[in-house]
Amino acid sequence: MENVQSGEAVSAAVLVIGDEILSGRTQDTNLAYLAKFLASIGIDLREARVVPDIEVEIVAAVNVLRARYTYVFTTGGIGPTHDDITADSIAKAFGVGIDYHPEALAMLGARYKPGEFNEMRKRMARIPDGATLIRNSVSTAPGFQLGNVFVMAGVPMIMRAMMEDVAPRLKRGTVVTTATISARIAEGRIAAPLARIQEGHKTVAIGSYPFYAEDGSGVQLVVRGRAPEDVEAAARDIEAAIRAEGIESTRIRA
Amino acid sequence: MENVQSGEAVSAAVLVIGDEILSGRTQDTNLAYLAKFLASIGIDLREARVVPDIEVEIVAAVNVLRARYTYVFTTGGIGPTHDDITADSIAKAFGVGIDYHPEALAMLGARYKPGEFNEMRKRMARIPDGATLIRNSVSTAPGFQLGNVFVMAGVPMIMRAMMEDVAPRLKRGTVVTTATISARIAEGRIAAPLARIQEGHKTVAIGSYPFYAEDGSGVQLVVRGRAPEDVEAAARDIEAAIRAEGIESTRIRA
Repeated sequence: MENVQSGEAVSAAVLVIGDEILSGRTQDTNLAYLAKFLASIGIDLREARVVPDIEVEIVAAVNVLRARYTYVFTTGGIGPTHDDITADSIAKAFGVGIDYHPEALAMLGARYKPGEFNEMRKRMARIPDGATLIRNSVSTAPGFQLGNVFVMAGVPMIMRAMMEDVAPRLKRGTVVTTATISARIAEGRIAAPLARIQEGHKTVAIGSYPFYAEDGSGVQLVVRGRAPEDVEAAARDIEAAIRAEGIESTRIRA
Repeated sequence: MENVQSGEAVSAAVLVIGDEILSGRTQDTNLAYLAKFLASIGIDLREARVVPDIEVEIVAAVNVLRARYTYVFTTGGIGPTHDDITADSIAKAFGVGIDYHPEALAMLGARYKPGEFNEMRKRMARIPDGATLIRNSVSTAPGFQLGNVFVMAGVPMIMRAMMEDVAPRLKRGTVVTTATISARIAEGRIAAPLARIQEGHKTVAIGSYPFYAEDGSGVQLVVRGRAPEDVEAAARDIEAAIRAEGIESTRIRA
């Protein structure tokens, strides 16, 4: 939706960190969650990347993304094991030191029984200099915010809890209004009118997504824009175009 | 698994193209599918990116990724509607022209009834100069290969069918062997022995993935490497380390 950005648009990128996503072991769901969450508060998710647990790759991606977008949200790599290298990589990306954070140490120290708070668990209290903690209600181990980068856990339940702590810190943009029209019509049959409607409604972005179901195929047409009246006007034009083909359509509630 | 690459490693990136992924409308599943598929033929997926339906973003991502990896696999944006701009973007990335491909035109022409093969549907036959077609058994509309870039549909069923046509064209590497050990033990309790085991087995990569289930939490430890005997040796050391903590572990079959 390049064409509906205003000067004050708040933008974001997601950086998923973890070999397990690239090996196919784990189906990532954090990106889709963050996409919806950010959309709900008017932040444009413009790009996502997935990188392995390799420092140079994490550093490079963070530095490109944080220069380019208002916010960067990372997931993964902040646990106690040797393959959790995100905190060190972020410190390196920003060119700052990293050390045990007194508050994080205290939080974690209170969580474990005497003798259980071992050196590897203490790794979870290593936070880059200048960062603030991101708390969560599920696990004790914190994430952190350094500049415009929010570093969160990879476990979805924990990441989602961390976003509760992150959300109040974020600038919000105008929420995008969406209208979704579903019809049992071939995408190629409606494509020409759709292109004309897109041409005539430049403040919205129209996406066309075919679906294939057991009881027949069709298309969902999604209109997105920041002015609800513009979205509605385009949606009505699309509905009229489908009707002109002698086909019924339905509005899908998001 | 930087440490288990050999000189002849075959590498890849996935580029997911589509506003619907970044808006949260659609949960992407193509990346996980491709990750598993590529792993099964010994190709290392090293990076993935998601970009919106914006030409300059697609061009930039394709040009970075194709220079960096043996192969690039893109999904999305090759349908008949105005928001399908991948083919044009790939042509621009390579600096080549784009035109109706005779074979693609013939294939599509044979699929539609007289009068139904309209201008927008013909868009699906626009293929960058020098590309070869990627056929699929589900829909008639082809993807294409240009250099080391494979351009495929976003609809998962069609993308998967396209990979059947793509697979024979790919150089294969040595398939990574994986051993997965599951135990009801806190990640932080096994972290120190794990780090030592990783240190002592440099030809494998050990990943630690905690899980949270209703009947208790635990961790899955994943050993990956190209020499099966090295993977097995590291896996046995991990099993011994868990046993030393008085906990049982199980091997998970992939």
